[in-house]
Amino acid sequence: MRTYDIIKKKRDGYALSNEEIRFFIDGYVKGDIPDYQASALCMAIFYKGMNVDETTALTLAIRDSGDVLDFSEINGVRVDKHSTGGVGDKTSLVVAPIVASLGVKVAKMSGRGLGHTGGTVDKLESIEGFKVDLDSKTFIDIVNRVGIAIVGQSATLAPADKMLYALRDVTATVDSMPLIASSIMGKKLAADDDCIVLDVKTGSGSFMKTVEESKQLASLMVDIGKKAGKKMLALITDMDIPLGYAIGNALEVKEAIDTLKGNGPRDFTEVCVALASNMLHLAGHGSEEECEQKVYSAINNGSALNTFIEMVKAQEGNVEWIKSPELFPTARYLRQVKAEKSGYINRVDTEGYGISALLLGAGRNTKEDKIDYSAGIILSKKTGDYVKSGEVLATLYTNDKEKLASAEKKFLSSTFIEDEKPILRPLIIDKVK
Amino acid sequence: MRTYDIIKKKRDGYALSNEEIRFFIDGYVKGDIPDYQASALCMAIFYKGMNVDETTALTLAIRDSGDVLDFSEINGVRVDKHSTGGVGDKTSLVVAPIVASLGVKVAKMSGRGLGHTGGTVDKLESIEGFKVDLDSKTFIDIVNRVGIAIVGQSATLAPADKMLYALRDVTATVDSMPLIASSIMGKKLAADDDCIVLDVKTGSGSFMKTVEESKQLASLMVDIGKKAGKKMLALITDMDIPLGYAIGNALEVKEAIDTLKGNGPRDFTEVCVALASNMLHLAGHGSEEECEQKVYSAINNGSALNTFIEMVKAQEGNVEWIKSPELFPTARYLRQVKAEKSGYINRVDTEGYGISALLLGAGRNTKEDKIDYSAGIILSKKTGDYVKSGEVLATLYTNDKEKLASAEKKFLSSTFIEDEKPILRPLIIDKVK
Repeated sequence: MRTYDIIKKKRDGYALSNEEIRFFIDGYVKGDIPDYQASALCMAIFYKGMNVDETTALTLAIRDSGDVLDFSEINGVRVDKHSTGGVGDKTSLVVAPIVASLGVKVAKMSGRGLGHTGGTVDKLESIEGFKVDLDSKTFIDIVNRVGIAIVGQSATLAPADKMLYALRDVTATVDSMPLIASSIMGKKLAADDDCIVLDVKTGSGSFMKTVEESKQLASLMVDIGKKAGKKMLALITDMDIPLGYAIGNALEVKEAIDTLKGNGPRDFTEVCVALASNMLHLAGHGSEEECEQKVYSAINNGSALNTFIEMVKAQEGNVEWIKSPELFPTARYLRQVKAEKSGYINRVDTEGYGISALLLGAGRNTKEDKIDYSAGIILSKKTGDYVKSGEVLATLYTNDKEKLASAEKKFLSSTFIEDEKPILRPLIIDKVK
Repeated sequence: MRTYDIIKKKRDGYALSNEEIRFFIDGYVKGDIPDYQASALCMAIFYKGMNVDETTALTLAIRDSGDVLDFSEINGVRVDKHSTGGVGDKTSLVVAPIVASLGVKVAKMSGRGLGHTGGTVDKLESIEGFKVDLDSKTFIDIVNRVGIAIVGQSATLAPADKMLYALRDVTATVDSMPLIASSIMGKKLAADDDCIVLDVKTGSGSFMKTVEESKQLASLMVDIGKKAGKKMLALITDMDIPLGYAIGNALEVKEAIDTLKGNGPRDFTEVCVALASNMLHLAGHGSEEECEQKVYSAINNGSALNTFIEMVKAQEGNVEWIKSPELFPTARYLRQVKAEKSGYINRVDTEGYGISALLLGAGRNTKEDKIDYSAGIILSKKTGDYVKSGEVLATLYTNDKEKLASAEKKFLSSTFIEDEKPILRPLIIDKVK
């Protein structure tokens, strides 16, 4: 088998065989196939696509390029949830404790944030002492005991994905449905879960800008997961508006705690309840309505928050901060961003909000950047709200005063105030099974 | 300017600016732009193409990546001829002496053969002592004195082309019209000629398999040359059948000598006369009919052969071999290939004939391979001829006995004998000005 022939075959629009895809991924990870052949193949895939069988083969080859985990020592049904990334998306911090408190096991591996989107692991690390690197035995023990543990993805998980993503990032081949789907699912399938609920974001703050694209990606990932023997389900949820009011690591953890107490923002709570209900339902805990009722009880009776606290304790985080969120360090500098005119917030560029938070120090531009955990944005007004000129739109937080001006500029240029009141679309746009 | 943005722009089908193309070629040659970005861009160009302005900009950037020659000290009009490569294509050895004997200057840089096609430089090196590496002063002196000199392309000529070609060769991005045209013309324009006649081959033994593709490539190269200020003309000539009867370096030189004496094969002579006449005409030596008459005289009165002998002498080749071609060493082993059935040679796979010669040692698979100058094929029968079962189709020559069997097998499987007599198309298929 020659790499040249594989590139040429895809270039000419033919489907690659399972053997050809394995040959490519194995050779690429070993270093036998150079980057320049891999990038040519990625560009050919960008144009010619891949069918479901090819994408599944690619996903499984990516999964098998590194460690494939064994969760058989975890008692009970294991459910994972994955979001395609958004702004202010702290759902994992809420839905995982909810379902764990109801008897489902969540052995979760999460990523770090890059660019305008945040990452669950970074958010958890804003809690003093919280450890995201656990050895496999400790991880499984905590899941069995508490119902949930959240760790970072190890370097040995799906190395083909890391290599391919770094290459695609500099060769304009990121925006390819089969490459995106196999990247996400290759990592997910390296974990040993029974059920996976996907939260595919759509809109200005997500990677998929249209509902059509988001549905395509969701269907493709659901199909791949099913072919790999998982119970699968995807929700298409809105990311034209940031979720909740908080953007930035510690700020989001505090909002998640509020939500676990039943005092969260309406939109964020709605998405969390939908995701948690579907996770429970997929795990066989009753009808969708029954599961929704259980989710509300877990919030109202405090068991969800309690599970979160138990997880933080087990992962060596300072639980006092969770019990008294005012203990989280606050940023040294803040600036109130004021409306430049009166009117309705007609729409916002959610990615622009994410970049504004990034500029404040809440995210990373490159993998090496350090995060300022207390940096971020608290929104006062959101899409659909009426504001008067001079009224506060948001408060920016940072420990680096120099960063306020550019973040404010980005925030204002991402907020569109108009006379017309916008019609908002539902938060849960569709479900793909 | 970022390489990423250039790749993305072409990926999305937009035309690149002159500045973007220069940035890419300059950065690639300097090593600032890695192979994996270059191969992604080549694949995007493969799918999205390039317009004439882009292709011209790419051509000129390739030209300017290395030495650009100055022929201003050559007296008289300078004409070059370039063939896109074929099997048994020894036209340069004939047309260059003809037009030089008629007062046109030919300062020719030629390539070496690779794969199934031969190279003029290799053919000349089959003459004892012939030097293809001349310093610039000697080269120009010979052109001024004899009218012609033929040297190898120096390593400092269009290095971008060498790098890009090596990359395209392993990433399935060779078959792209703008990349082929800019590769050929980038090298041609690095020489300092007034007129260029292109011989674009079409058919089973050439890179362009259809007349339509060949015409497109010819038009594109003619347009590029004109934009660069050259007088341009292209002939589309047949390569469904090898030219003449000889394939292989020394064998072809001997056939070229016969042709310069007026005793060459009919088909090969016809193509040489057409090319030489058009070179003369483009250089302003009269109407096409007048030029054709002059070409025939140069052959008939011996001045073309004499010019060839003078060039060989000036380049330190053994002229006795030219005067008495039987002095060329002959191969140690020969095998007569016989027809397996009776009928007309309906068609041949000319590339297959080229590969058969390559297998005998007449060519190179990789740049490092050594050539066996006396190896090759002398055809006894060509497309359209009637053969009886057992009659000799060709004689194979080699110094390595082991090679005969595979070469014979390839030769036979490339010869299609059928009951039906084929209708042959004209040799000169079209002219593009």
